[in-house]
Amino acid sequence: MQMKKPAAKKLSVGICGASGYTGMELLRILALHPHITVTAVTSEKSAGRKVGDVFPFLSSYGSLRFEPMDRERLLGKADLFFLALPHGASQEAVHYFFSNGRKVVDLSADYRLTNPKTYAAWYGLLHNYPAALKKTVYGLPELYRKKIQKASLIANPGCYPTSAVLGIMPAVRDRLIDLSTITIDSKSGTSGAGRKADLGISFCEVNEGFKAYGLVTHRHTPEIEQEISNLAGKKVVVNFTPHLLPVDRGILTTIYAKLKKKTDTKTVLSLYGRTYAKEPFVRVLPEGVLPNVKNVRGTNTCEVGVKVNDRTNTLIIVSAIDNLVKGASGQAVQNMNLMMGFAETAGLGQLALYP
Amino acid sequence: MQMKKPAAKKLSVGICGASGYTGMELLRILALHPHITVTAVTSEKSAGRKVGDVFPFLSSYGSLRFEPMDRERLLGKADLFFLALPHGASQEAVHYFFSNGRKVVDLSADYRLTNPKTYAAWYGLLHNYPAALKKTVYGLPELYRKKIQKASLIANPGCYPTSAVLGIMPAVRDRLIDLSTITIDSKSGTSGAGRKADLGISFCEVNEGFKAYGLVTHRHTPEIEQEISNLAGKKVVVNFTPHLLPVDRGILTTIYAKLKKKTDTKTVLSLYGRTYAKEPFVRVLPEGVLPNVKNVRGTNTCEVGVKVNDRTNTLIIVSAIDNLVKGASGQAVQNMNLMMGFAETAGLGQLALYP
Amino acid sequence: MQMKKPAAKKLSVGICGASGYTGMELLRILALHPHITVTAVTSEKSAGRKVGDVFPFLSSYGSLRFEPMDRERLLGKADLFFLALPHGASQEAVHYFFSNGRKVVDLSADYRLTNPKTYAAWYGLLHNYPAALKKTVYGLPELYRKKIQKASLIANPGCYPTSAVLGIMPAVRDRLIDLSTITIDSKSGTSGAGRKADLGISFCEVNEGFKAYGLVTHRHTPEIEQEISNLAGKKVVVNFTPHLLPVDRGILTTIYAKLKKKTDTKTVLSLYGRTYAKEPFVRVLPEGVLPNVKNVRGTNTCEVGVKVNDRTNTLIIVSAIDNLVKGASGQAVQNMNLMMGFAETAGLGQLALYP
Amino acid sequence: MQMKKPAAKKLSVGICGASGYTGMELLRILALHPHITVTAVTSEKSAGRKVGDVFPFLSSYGSLRFEPMDRERLLGKADLFFLALPHGASQEAVHYFFSNGRKVVDLSADYRLTNPKTYAAWYGLLHNYPAALKKTVYGLPELYRKKIQKASLIANPGCYPTSAVLGIMPAVRDRLIDLSTITIDSKSGTSGAGRKADLGISFCEVNEGFKAYGLVTHRHTPEIEQEISNLAGKKVVVNFTPHLLPVDRGILTTIYAKLKKKTDTKTVLSLYGRTYAKEPFVRVLPEGVLPNVKNVRGTNTCEVGVKVNDRTNTLIIVSAIDNLVKGASGQAVQNMNLMMGFAETAGLGQLALYP
Repeated sequence: MQMKKPAAKKLSVGICGASGYTGMELLRILALHPHITVTAVTSEKSAGRKVGDVFPFLSSYGSLRFEPMDRERLLGKADLFFLALPHGASQEAVHYFFSNGRKVVDLSADYRLTNPKTYAAWYGLLHNYPAALKKTVYGLPELYRKKIQKASLIANPGCYPTSAVLGIMPAVRDRLIDLSTITIDSKSGTSGAGRKADLGISFCEVNEGFKAYGLVTHRHTPEIEQEISNLAGKKVVVNFTPHLLPVDRGILTTIYAKLKKKTDTKTVLSLYGRTYAKEPFVRVLPEGVLPNVKNVRGTNTCEVGVKVNDRTNTLIIVSAIDNLVKGASGQAVQNMNLMMGFAETAGLGQLALYP
Repeated sequence: MQMKKPAAKKLSVGICGASGYTGMELLRILALHPHITVTAVTSEKSAGRKVGDVFPFLSSYGSLRFEPMDRERLLGKADLFFLALPHGASQEAVHYFFSNGRKVVDLSADYRLTNPKTYAAWYGLLHNYPAALKKTVYGLPELYRKKIQKASLIANPGCYPTSAVLGIMPAVRDRLIDLSTITIDSKSGTSGAGRKADLGISFCEVNEGFKAYGLVTHRHTPEIEQEISNLAGKKVVVNFTPHLLPVDRGILTTIYAKLKKKTDTKTVLSLYGRTYAKEPFVRVLPEGVLPNVKNVRGTNTCEVGVKVNDRTNTLIIVSAIDNLVKGASGQAVQNMNLMMGFAETAGLGQLALYP
Repeated sequence: MQMKKPAAKKLSVGICGASGYTGMELLRILALHPHITVTAVTSEKSAGRKVGDVFPFLSSYGSLRFEPMDRERLLGKADLFFLALPHGASQEAVHYFFSNGRKVVDLSADYRLTNPKTYAAWYGLLHNYPAALKKTVYGLPELYRKKIQKASLIANPGCYPTSAVLGIMPAVRDRLIDLSTITIDSKSGTSGAGRKADLGISFCEVNEGFKAYGLVTHRHTPEIEQEISNLAGKKVVVNFTPHLLPVDRGILTTIYAKLKKKTDTKTVLSLYGRTYAKEPFVRVLPEGVLPNVKNVRGTNTCEVGVKVNDRTNTLIIVSAIDNLVKGASGQAVQNMNLMMGFAETAGLGQLALYP
Repeated sequence: MQMKKPAAKKLSVGICGASGYTGMELLRILALHPHITVTAVTSEKSAGRKVGDVFPFLSSYGSLRFEPMDRERLLGKADLFFLALPHGASQEAVHYFFSNGRKVVDLSADYRLTNPKTYAAWYGLLHNYPAALKKTVYGLPELYRKKIQKASLIANPGCYPTSAVLGIMPAVRDRLIDLSTITIDSKSGTSGAGRKADLGISFCEVNEGFKAYGLVTHRHTPEIEQEISNLAGKKVVVNFTPHLLPVDRGILTTIYAKLKKKTDTKTVLSLYGRTYAKEPFVRVLPEGVLPNVKNVRGTNTCEVGVKVNDRTNTLIIVSAIDNLVKGASGQAVQNMNLMMGFAETAGLGQLALYP
């Protein structure tokens, strides 16, 4: 398949860590983006090889080759960098590109937590760039659209936090729930574990299995708590339990919280509908319809459904995203669109691959 | 493969509704049971056909044929009946066999709820046999072993209730948790939906998907509440949310409840270990190890793991069963073993099919 | 997500049978097509409901509603019709729209076999529109591009024939193989069976299973033979065996044929490379690389790999397509593009959803 | 679950390489075997740990611990050894136990090929124990039952060869087919690739994918050819193509060969029925019924179906096995049973886990 050559001046984009799943997903999405050209992609293992030789389904990238992560060489090649590196490894790279005037969307966790002490406590790492950290905007457009539009450095949210925060946001903002009773039970497809040789995610270990993992200790917990706390205006802690689903993609998050006063599903749905009415990537489902990760596969959409349990006085919220799109690379492109003044939905129009 | 002929006098067993998944699973398990012979199996659709002609993997049953559900004809054919009929349809059949002196293990929901009003409220059906209902024992051996040993009519528990009640029982009995804060988030394999032509459970709808269903209204809710209330000595209501997993078998249940006083994982695990020390079919996992439905596939085992969340003061319990075995047919055989004075584990020794 | 309104004059397109998997897939693909507007969609079961209410992932279609299959009403609504109806049902509908001056792409089997006797023999139906049949072009662009460009009535190829014919075409044309020795062993994802309530394609029957079906009798056999015979200039019969894969999408076809004279993989690959050099939707893989259905998921691409077995003097060809895209709806859109003079790749630029 | 203590004198069995999938499967099967006790299990990585601590589903093995592969220490611990080591590594170990008077079932490929030159050509290794090799019996009971009963050293067949040879044997023996036209198209579940950290078999690479691999070069080719040649009484070469199925277990093999003279399905099925009439682990399916890997999951059964294609004068044979049972560990136990004079089916009575 032939890629069209850039017609007018397009934004030059570099992707660091392009051979992992989030990097590959950026390449998949950006191939159809009208305003950008991918000019550099890095991969240590595949350095020197054409993208299409490593991944046949990306062969439309033609002569583009993976190169090693050499910051100085990369700097001149792009105006904006997506960093899809492991946490820790991203700290310095972000700082380097950012301090040299490039726009950066960082898909790692390194710049998500505004408090470096929290980062140190959960990730076991010091943050060496507090100045850059202060200028970072948390890239959840539904919360921080205006800030993102003016930002040069975006910390792209984690997959679980995206699903949890989009699910609970209207309820927290509108003071519907008792903040001391929040339980977030999430289930993620296996691509969330990354692209790697690891017995634990080999086919025969995951297929036909299902388990919880990282109980109480998962590193997305403080990120979820940070955003809920910001919304609530006070410190909130939550139960967060991730589970591993035997599917490629998708996160379904089921949230429980006691209601502060009696209400019903219809009233809550109305609030959710109003809150997200203008959002291009949040779909609030009508009463009786519930999200399914299959409905959002390959898309940047977050589906949300809610139900009030009268008997227990509890609000139950269910949200679904594709962890690689709205949970990572799609949201990163959405953030780029906002930063660059492109249409927010540019390159993100694909509908779900169903079935 | 040749089936051995019954050596000594064996118990004659009939299975009504033998061509659904729980019926087939009874046949799978009973084929290796040392003390019984299956003498009658019913199926309207397959009546007249050999079991092995309908299900090649059951061809060791030789000349045994499905027959229609004709109670009078069946009565003389077996000493004990497993009823794997839809709820509603089971009411009368149970009563008929029971009142004619047969032992009965009913796998439907018809005799599980001790209060006929609750049954009417959730199932929309009157219970026409209150006398039989009163003599029914709820067949969860870990709670009611002694009663089961003396019983003639067993209501075999639902799959979700089995996973939930075995998970929470020690915590409720030992008054560890605030009973007004129980949330039960369950995920079930698709065989739980039964064997039928239904678009909603067709491969392309379920595969690579994941969703919640039956929010707030699932009929296993009152059954779970009944058993927790019995344990607690007072009426308890819970949040119960089932989800549909794209796997054949297995239920994983994640339970959350606020702790009444500070404790730690080790202490709770010690309680769980003591509670289930002599149980042949409950495996309490050591600290840091969590259940996986794959570990119990094809077995009658329930795996349980627990973790205390200090930050939220919450006890988190995870349990895993095979919904067709401990959640249905295996437990039914365990109940038969207890009723008949066989070794409780007879016929149930298979280890998990892993991978 | 908002759909942009048609800017200039766009082609009005109707889809008959839009709630099956091929119809849904047309909607998925056409949502991003730059030159058309979907103006009518039919579904008996969902008539009157909005597309997005039935399929949340298609909610970008806004107010478009399913309507019953009323030909007269439909006629005025569109310039071109895609018919995704069952075989048999399509015969008359095709004729109606075609004879009333509409362009038609028929996704059923009704107009694929040029000889009505063959159709009668394999489908058990008389063909009532031999005149229309004569004007039909078989819509495999890699064979019949020029005819398609001038056609008004296209018989869109079957999924298995597309994978088989694209795989074997260069070898037949170039007289490499002994035509009496062709064996075509195909494996298809479950969406090929359609969207329906059917026990045989329920999740628990298909998942973790794999089987052959329709041995010797599958109706795609004469279609494959027709096209190979046309290429060969003489009547050819083949072994064709379909198998059912526990995946949503994809056909992998492995083809075996004795070589007429000694050659090697490199030579054959060179032929394949030349043959398909200008094809936008065929990707010939380098030596040692083999197709995977996952590489073409959601795309209109056909991957082809070849290998010569010296020891047995056999050419082995492997091809992979997405049965719903190149095997159905994507190829239908490609045919429309050719008929209408659009860019052949319009609307078909999506890369594979991987993983 | 409690394991019963050995009552009478039981055979002591050691398993070398017990933490791979075939080793684990031996443990699963042997747990229910009436005449043996597992007295030693080796694993370098898990040495010192209890079996049940590494694999919770094997916790019924109680205090049995993995130990390193120290031949001298092992020698005294068991009367019979199963070796589930990688090829190459098995050569010496087999020789050591065998020359020290132990019975050995070797699950590796090291002793399967009777001609050391063929072994060298396909495996790139010299065979250092030609004397032991000569005393080895190829452990396919349906062909070599009497030899196995007298043997002390068994080369347990490969998974693909088992499925292929059991499928084709009656046709070759009865001279039905043209031996120069045999094509064997096999599809295997992922457990056949072993238990290891490897990107290529990670969940997201395998799931929803399907591909051929090892075209023309797969090492099971000479093993298949050896056995067919033995049956035919002359050298035969075949096309053998393996494919990777996204399921845990199962091999389905589809075999094609030209018929030497006209016959029909019924006649061929009758031959197959007679040939396998007394075999406890081969199930010949009636006309119109075809094998499914799901029907044999977890069992030692091989299902076989056949169909004559009149139009192409070809015999098509389909066979299905569980690659870890009849294709490895179950067959190994069957061989042990024969060697030791146990009932051939001892420990192998489990029915398929369906669904």
